[in-house]
Amino acid sequence: MMTGKQYVESLRQLKTRIYAYGEKLENFVDHPLVKPHINSAAVTYDMAHGPELEDLLTATSHLTGSKVNRFTHIHQSTDDLAQKVKMLRALAQRTGSCFQRCVGFDAINGLYSTTFDMDRKYATEYHRRIREYVRYLQETDKMVAGSMTDPKGDRSQAPHEQHDPDLYVHVVEKNEQGIVIRGAKAHQTGIINSHEMLIMPTVALNEEAKDYAVACAIPVDAPGVVHIFGRQTNDSRKYDEMDQGNARYGVVGGEALSVLDNVFVPWDRVFMCGEYEFADVLVQRFASYHRQNYGGCKAGVSDVVIGAAAALAEMNGVDKASHIKDKLVEMIHLTETLYCGSIACSFQGHPTPSGAYFVDPLLANVTKLNATRFIYEISRLGHDLAGGLIATLPSERDLRHPEVGKYVEKYFKGVASVPTVERMRMVRLLENMTGCTALAESMHGAGSPQAQRVMILRQGNLRHKINLAKRLASLQKN
Amino acid sequence: MMTGKQYVESLRQLKTRIYAYGEKLENFVDHPLVKPHINSAAVTYDMAHGPELEDLLTATSHLTGSKVNRFTHIHQSTDDLAQKVKMLRALAQRTGSCFQRCVGFDAINGLYSTTFDMDRKYATEYHRRIREYVRYLQETDKMVAGSMTDPKGDRSQAPHEQHDPDLYVHVVEKNEQGIVIRGAKAHQTGIINSHEMLIMPTVALNEEAKDYAVACAIPVDAPGVVHIFGRQTNDSRKYDEMDQGNARYGVVGGEALSVLDNVFVPWDRVFMCGEYEFADVLVQRFASYHRQNYGGCKAGVSDVVIGAAAALAEMNGVDKASHIKDKLVEMIHLTETLYCGSIACSFQGHPTPSGAYFVDPLLANVTKLNATRFIYEISRLGHDLAGGLIATLPSERDLRHPEVGKYVEKYFKGVASVPTVERMRMVRLLENMTGCTALAESMHGAGSPQAQRVMILRQGNLRHKINLAKRLASLQKN
Amino acid sequence: MMTGKQYVESLRQLKTRIYAYGEKLENFVDHPLVKPHINSAAVTYDMAHGPELEDLLTATSHLTGSKVNRFTHIHQSTDDLAQKVKMLRALAQRTGSCFQRCVGFDAINGLYSTTFDMDRKYATEYHRRIREYVRYLQETDKMVAGSMTDPKGDRSQAPHEQHDPDLYVHVVEKNEQGIVIRGAKAHQTGIINSHEMLIMPTVALNEEAKDYAVACAIPVDAPGVVHIFGRQTNDSRKYDEMDQGNARYGVVGGEALSVLDNVFVPWDRVFMCGEYEFADVLVQRFASYHRQNYGGCKAGVSDVVIGAAAALAEMNGVDKASHIKDKLVEMIHLTETLYCGSIACSFQGHPTPSGAYFVDPLLANVTKLNATRFIYEISRLGHDLAGGLIATLPSERDLRHPEVGKYVEKYFKGVASVPTVERMRMVRLLENMTGCTALAESMHGAGSPQAQRVMILRQGNLRHKINLAKRLASLQKN
Amino acid sequence: MMTGKQYVESLRQLKTRIYAYGEKLENFVDHPLVKPHINSAAVTYDMAHGPELEDLLTATSHLTGSKVNRFTHIHQSTDDLAQKVKMLRALAQRTGSCFQRCVGFDAINGLYSTTFDMDRKYATEYHRRIREYVRYLQETDKMVAGSMTDPKGDRSQAPHEQHDPDLYVHVVEKNEQGIVIRGAKAHQTGIINSHEMLIMPTVALNEEAKDYAVACAIPVDAPGVVHIFGRQTNDSRKYDEMDQGNARYGVVGGEALSVLDNVFVPWDRVFMCGEYEFADVLVQRFASYHRQNYGGCKAGVSDVVIGAAAALAEMNGVDKASHIKDKLVEMIHLTETLYCGSIACSFQGHPTPSGAYFVDPLLANVTKLNATRFIYEISRLGHDLAGGLIATLPSERDLRHPEVGKYVEKYFKGVASVPTVERMRMVRLLENMTGCTALAESMHGAGSPQAQRVMILRQGNLRHKINLAKRLASLQKN
Repeated sequence: MMTGKQYVESLRQLKTRIYAYGEKLENFVDHPLVKPHINSAAVTYDMAHGPELEDLLTATSHLTGSKVNRFTHIHQSTDDLAQKVKMLRALAQRTGSCFQRCVGFDAINGLYSTTFDMDRKYATEYHRRIREYVRYLQETDKMVAGSMTDPKGDRSQAPHEQHDPDLYVHVVEKNEQGIVIRGAKAHQTGIINSHEMLIMPTVALNEEAKDYAVACAIPVDAPGVVHIFGRQTNDSRKYDEMDQGNARYGVVGGEALSVLDNVFVPWDRVFMCGEYEFADVLVQRFASYHRQNYGGCKAGVSDVVIGAAAALAEMNGVDKASHIKDKLVEMIHLTETLYCGSIACSFQGHPTPSGAYFVDPLLANVTKLNATRFIYEISRLGHDLAGGLIATLPSERDLRHPEVGKYVEKYFKGVASVPTVERMRMVRLLENMTGCTALAESMHGAGSPQAQRVMILRQGNLRHKINLAKRLASLQKN
Repeated sequence: MMTGKQYVESLRQLKTRIYAYGEKLENFVDHPLVKPHINSAAVTYDMAHGPELEDLLTATSHLTGSKVNRFTHIHQSTDDLAQKVKMLRALAQRTGSCFQRCVGFDAINGLYSTTFDMDRKYATEYHRRIREYVRYLQETDKMVAGSMTDPKGDRSQAPHEQHDPDLYVHVVEKNEQGIVIRGAKAHQTGIINSHEMLIMPTVALNEEAKDYAVACAIPVDAPGVVHIFGRQTNDSRKYDEMDQGNARYGVVGGEALSVLDNVFVPWDRVFMCGEYEFADVLVQRFASYHRQNYGGCKAGVSDVVIGAAAALAEMNGVDKASHIKDKLVEMIHLTETLYCGSIACSFQGHPTPSGAYFVDPLLANVTKLNATRFIYEISRLGHDLAGGLIATLPSERDLRHPEVGKYVEKYFKGVASVPTVERMRMVRLLENMTGCTALAESMHGAGSPQAQRVMILRQGNLRHKINLAKRLASLQKN
Repeated sequence: MMTGKQYVESLRQLKTRIYAYGEKLENFVDHPLVKPHINSAAVTYDMAHGPELEDLLTATSHLTGSKVNRFTHIHQSTDDLAQKVKMLRALAQRTGSCFQRCVGFDAINGLYSTTFDMDRKYATEYHRRIREYVRYLQETDKMVAGSMTDPKGDRSQAPHEQHDPDLYVHVVEKNEQGIVIRGAKAHQTGIINSHEMLIMPTVALNEEAKDYAVACAIPVDAPGVVHIFGRQTNDSRKYDEMDQGNARYGVVGGEALSVLDNVFVPWDRVFMCGEYEFADVLVQRFASYHRQNYGGCKAGVSDVVIGAAAALAEMNGVDKASHIKDKLVEMIHLTETLYCGSIACSFQGHPTPSGAYFVDPLLANVTKLNATRFIYEISRLGHDLAGGLIATLPSERDLRHPEVGKYVEKYFKGVASVPTVERMRMVRLLENMTGCTALAESMHGAGSPQAQRVMILRQGNLRHKINLAKRLASLQKN
Repeated sequence: MMTGKQYVESLRQLKTRIYAYGEKLENFVDHPLVKPHINSAAVTYDMAHGPELEDLLTATSHLTGSKVNRFTHIHQSTDDLAQKVKMLRALAQRTGSCFQRCVGFDAINGLYSTTFDMDRKYATEYHRRIREYVRYLQETDKMVAGSMTDPKGDRSQAPHEQHDPDLYVHVVEKNEQGIVIRGAKAHQTGIINSHEMLIMPTVALNEEAKDYAVACAIPVDAPGVVHIFGRQTNDSRKYDEMDQGNARYGVVGGEALSVLDNVFVPWDRVFMCGEYEFADVLVQRFASYHRQNYGGCKAGVSDVVIGAAAALAEMNGVDKASHIKDKLVEMIHLTETLYCGSIACSFQGHPTPSGAYFVDPLLANVTKLNATRFIYEISRLGHDLAGGLIATLPSERDLRHPEVGKYVEKYFKGVASVPTVERMRMVRLLENMTGCTALAESMHGAGSPQAQRVMILRQGNLRHKINLAKRLASLQKN
């Protein structure tokens, strides 16, 4: 298992092509726009070594018996599923941010069981390949980005019906050595500081779209791959230590559009190629694992938001007011409700034929759907407790200014005992953790709310409920 | 373990004094006001024998090694805690109602660990007594009512400060044989069809109030005990089969005021007597166990409500409309969110020094607080789907009337394929499951919402959260 | 203008055929099931004479220049529209109930302008007839029920496609004297204690359904008319003074199914007959007027609910607690938000070609949609403040019982200064005002929520909003 | 009345000292950080001349009979109050932003009636002075910032109890010419591009704090005044046309801390000086006027947000989906509910003894409280409709980049008919309108939610409601 430092060094070996804010990043590892995201991912490496969270961050590989970073592990029990949730919450409490590595974690688990089912049906060898690939990840401790979301173009059209066939990733060539793919993956969390990307289809597919039924792994710096980094709320503040709030870790994972311009993939890294009816299976497996996470990491992030709001209440001298306490209770209540979903879908998990454990998909979808509401409400309450400064605080540069710094110091003081700079830092932390990018991540990450609603209807077993009601209403007797 | 039938017969042996609607019930077992509640409790006996739910309804006694009805069991693991939740949901799906027996179940578990702690501190013998009492319940399979809530009079005054000292149950005499208590317990679910009542204090107490620190068990028909049955929404419909909706089981548990007019209790049934500082401990243990339940039984009841609403949508011919499906999804979503709380607080449980397992109290309180909101929202959505008939449907007698029955038959028909009487029955089921009594039960059962909020603040560890935020805002460096 | 007493006497002259709970009501005027509803409607007559609300309850007829009861008036200004709202709130504060008379009020106003438009297009004489009819109502001060809602059968089928053609009211014969209609109207508020019923179609109609395009007025005791009274929450408590909560006025308006079994209507009482394309116009006019009401009467009813909750908080000794005050603030906030909708849609009203003023339809629909949510939430908060007694209080008969009355008296006492019976009465008031019938009325009265949503989309002018956004996003320049 | 251009030129004449992002702005009028806010305020000048909104933007002065810009007008009727709301909505629809000028508008109106009451009690001449000042504003059409909010330091301490006496503005010297004040005003909307600032106290004051009871007007560039501009969400994007979303007008008003370092005020610009018991009156008058606005301007801003969301749905090809339409309906519903509050509190307004009209304070507070919730919910729904791009879209510079621009162009295309740049622009508009600054403005502008709750309790007349309930529960008879 790598340390955080080794991880950072390993990134320097890559030739990843990254464009951001109109420029090609030559040394992305130390670039201010990227650095916080790398720091955050590095925590997933460091914590596996420290005593504090070692139990959560490590697991015993069922492939090799070795101790591995949990992010490369295939779940072997409901306890494994629950440990994952606890790990995510603990990491989010320490980073206040996204550490990005769960996406690849969920991708390998989703592919593990799906390839097993594919092989059973078609006598393919995808499962063997993915086992090899997982073993490789476990041994090298590489960070892998789960790459599912295609750009999708016109949402009323299927992949093969789009005006531009590349709006979904597809196979453009097959030969003895492997395949060539083209397209792009959007909203790629953590991809620019990953080593590998694990490509999967993003929707259910029919036979006409079978070229789009492709899953495979490639290095993020493979020839033909170009990453274009997305803007975030207040991204320019990454150049101002104090004003960015969480200077070390940022407030969400950096996301990119990853273009795949005729990229070659050797066969031993191909895990689906044309078996279109398994696209939906894989999407739902991956999505359920990924939706499970939101009561873990988002609860941890919310713990920090609650702490920041409570700290500001103290700094403002209002922490004893009953309406303040009531709002903090509500924030805790929502956070723990979110957490309950993740814990419950884990303990209600079950083994798949492959042996890997799968979460309860109904409860995982319920969890994510709650995230799309609660994070907004928690942020709203955080803004309420913070006071108007969250919208009007001057910059750190003004605090440091020779002429007006004294005014900033004097007039932004709250209770006498707390230095102004501490209050300002806390406002900045809360402000940046509740910006548009952070909120929208809780809305669209792991799929937009309507995707969860569709799954809840599918999994909700309405017919059974109707029968329960009919029995109690004595309908069979009439 | 008794069967349902044996349970009903055993009630006939009692001399329970019950008043309802201004009359003394001579044969309460067959009385229409009481019968549905007895039927519902009887299911907890019957299901322990049938194959369908035997795993959930039974457990192995840690005292005797025998198979016992789970409602008399002391939780030995987090699995036991989770099985309880699943049992409650399964029973509620089958009864659509309250089966009342969880209150005593939670009382014996709360007392089990609290008495252990009391004995350790005071070398008392309460824990031995409660073990004996539990063994007695397991062997006889008696139904015990958990009796906590006192009438409380003026809520701004402590028990010993009330204008009438009896507004909380207290010890009025102690002698060699035992103690004499006076007062009353309010909102006593299932007490009139229980065998025993297990009395506990209802608030934290200080030394001045030590006479109020009393826990003990008595038969419900002990001399000096009088029960006055409360009215429920539409209680008079218990005389009209169809109009009551759920004729067999009713829609909530019957509640009573149980007056204790100088009731003698022998020492071997006394489990607390003056150890006032344990009152709060016991209240919180019992309350947490009891709040755990609400994502079990209320989720099961909601399953029926959802089923009834979906059935009515079909009968109205609107089940294909997207807004109808969307509301059903929302009802399922809320129900499963509630369930997640109960499941999570169970699996996050831990052993007490007594060996009995305790739920996670923070998550148990979160669960109950959700119930105080979601059940109302689920009912609201149910009313939406039902259509206006839920407020205006004529009586069964009108349907059966020789002159106007034909009009009722003709004009309350929905889709052609469903008999009018089936639609009417389904409306009645939904109407009665969403009435004031059912809603208010989800609000105040196991404590009113403010009680949960206080516990969430106590358990929420705000200081830890503040420290998380301070670390990320780099406050230690300034 | 009649007094309340004259109104009651006038009802005795009618031969209205009413069935309720399986019986034909011979003297419905004094029947306990009906009496409270008559009392409530009588207030609309009495208040027009008293000094307190005379300004609100009366208006000057534009037809005759005489002072008339406002419930028979055609709105002549936005002030008239706003006075209506204030009148409804004032009456609801005094009755705590539905006084039923707004339905006919809205029907005459809806028909007044729609017939004007019909005459303009078809040179019919409907508008003259409705003017005559309004003048007749103003002079006789008769109470008219607005009869719109048909039973509707299978909602996926249009009126003429139903398995039974009578599931919507339709014309079965036309002759020189008039027409004969058949069908039924459901959920008819106040109809059994009205003098007249004013029949209108309930949905948009196409040419095939033109026989269903019929509007006309008939006496409620016309040959062929039979009324079957619906059950309400706790309707049997109408026989127990105290337990019904609001013994004088009941808690909602009584609703009936009114069967029209080949009823003859003379031509001068026919206001639409075949002009199918005006069905939608009439429905939307009536519905908007009727939706306008919900921030008036429901705000008034909520004022009473808030008062009852606040009174119970005082009686319980908790009125100083901050969480109690906070909940009362929330109840007031929701009530006033509801009221704002009605006031706003009135002042934003405008004249129709007929001269009658019409409310802003967008804001009227918004108002009603809020009612379908807020009344539930206000009730939920009321339950919270009331405490558990709202679900478990014994009957008045128990309070009066020679043996157990003393216990009820003793143990249901709150603060020392308030007699137990007062606390019990207040619990009963709140319980009955928040029951299923009252809640469902706020959901489905004036149309179910989806009907409002459809209108909001129609009226919301989305294209204009898109253009605003495009202009600001500088799209025209690209 | 000035035109927008004249307004901008007039700002150049000022010597306003403004610091932003650590620098003194030498030419603030053309500075990218400030320019959009000036453009937005300029619209309030231009629209008074154009035909489109002239009726809303102008009024007839009751002082001079001349036509004046409405922002300098004293309300003479409920129609004036309603016109104000409609003006604010119309301006917000056109700017999508804050145009800042309402604060001073509300300040002159609040002072107008309060000084009248002060003069009546103390025979002071404040009212004459404010009339003169209003006339001056009307004649010069100057923009005046309403300056109420003090920094407040420790919120648990009164102004005179603070560790630093300057944390609230106070009088430090009085002489024959005038007074000298010290302190600062925080969160000053629009102040850096105003001509004048109108200072008022921010809390109720007692006699000990009478030095803090000061109201007066000064030029924003008076000696001793220094403005420090606050940071906003994405403020650095003001340097990137497309990425800021609403390049012309920005997305909220710029706010500043305005330091008053021993500023001299001549007596004819002093409107309160020591009359501490009127501080609360003035605060509540100003606050109610200001809370009235939120259903005007925020509804207008929300119209743009709805339009942007709807436009994106079309560009994504999902505008026909029922769940999309349902969310748009909800956004419209919330927006119009907000608007109803402003309209209702205007039409329910009444004259003060001074002749100036005042809004209904209960309904004005209700309106603002709704804004603190609905704007968040509307933004949440906007994020839902926008899709994940709102969090991950690359910069305009990437779109224009010679190497990767083609990928951005290709892969961020939605439906074929809409150019990629248009979709990107629309995402940016929505993103920036729903950022932290915009949300927090709806939370804390015109006072934080708890301030509104306190006023709702004060104005809600709970005692009257309790009496209504008691009468219906027949309590007087027992």
